[in-house]
Amino acid sequence: MNIEVQITNSVLALPPCHIPGCGAIARFEGVVRGIEDGQPIAALEYEAYLPMAEKVIREILTDLNELHPFAFSRVHHRVGVVPVGEAAIILDVHASHRAEAFAVLSKFMDRLKRDVPIWKVRAIKEARLS
Amino acid sequence: MNIEVQITNSVLALPPCHIPGCGAIARFEGVVRGIEDGQPIAALEYEAYLPMAEKVIREILTDLNELHPFAFSRVHHRVGVVPVGEAAIILDVHASHRAEAFAVLSKFMDRLKRDVPIWKVRAIKEARLS
Repeated sequence: MNIEVQITNSVLALPPCHIPGCGAIARFEGVVRGIEDGQPIAALEYEAYLPMAEKVIREILTDLNELHPFAFSRVHHRVGVVPVGEAAIILDVHASHRAEAFAVLSKFMDRLKRDVPIWKVRAIKEARLS
Repeated sequence: MNIEVQITNSVLALPPCHIPGCGAIARFEGVVRGIEDGQPIAALEYEAYLPMAEKVIREILTDLNELHPFAFSRVHHRVGVVPVGEAAIILDVHASHRAEAFAVLSKFMDRLKRDVPIWKVRAIKEARLS
């Protein structure tokens, strides 16, 4: 099982990738929405405690692999200012069959929110961005 | 809620697409594996009963939208000969939040296999493709 983690200030993109033997690729993209706490926003700003964030992401995936074996997973998380309509996170899971891929994708996102030291530090309003 | 269905002989590709208000994009790609029924293969051949397949795909998504509201979904299914390592199906679901997107993605795939008139008609062995 291989894991690729990137935490970056740049726009996210996962290039297409097919792993031999994998019949299932499940992917999730979390995009910044134009509303935060009921108010219109222009962007969200994220911060990470970098070495720990990458370590915990790898631990979660290693843990999920025990129960739902998969071949490869990429987790790319953006930090800094992420404008509305752009992705804050993209991940994918490559597995033999779809049940494992779906389980890892969904459980990873739950644990990311709970355990990984990456935070929304502020919402940036329209006027402040322009 | 909008639905896009394509059933095609061509290589599949879903171009990137962001729908305003959608914070979650879940996507699944079903790829032909090199083994079918324990035997090495070079490709699978799919056939569809076209008008019915598209109609049933739309019905399933409309049905799932009642329970798990989403904004947009694309289902692209390939027919004809699909070589190992290429996608037979790609779908995505765009929703406000990830719970709905994951539920639709996973339940759609279960119902596709059961209800949609698209079949694997044969496995093509290495020697027959070369």
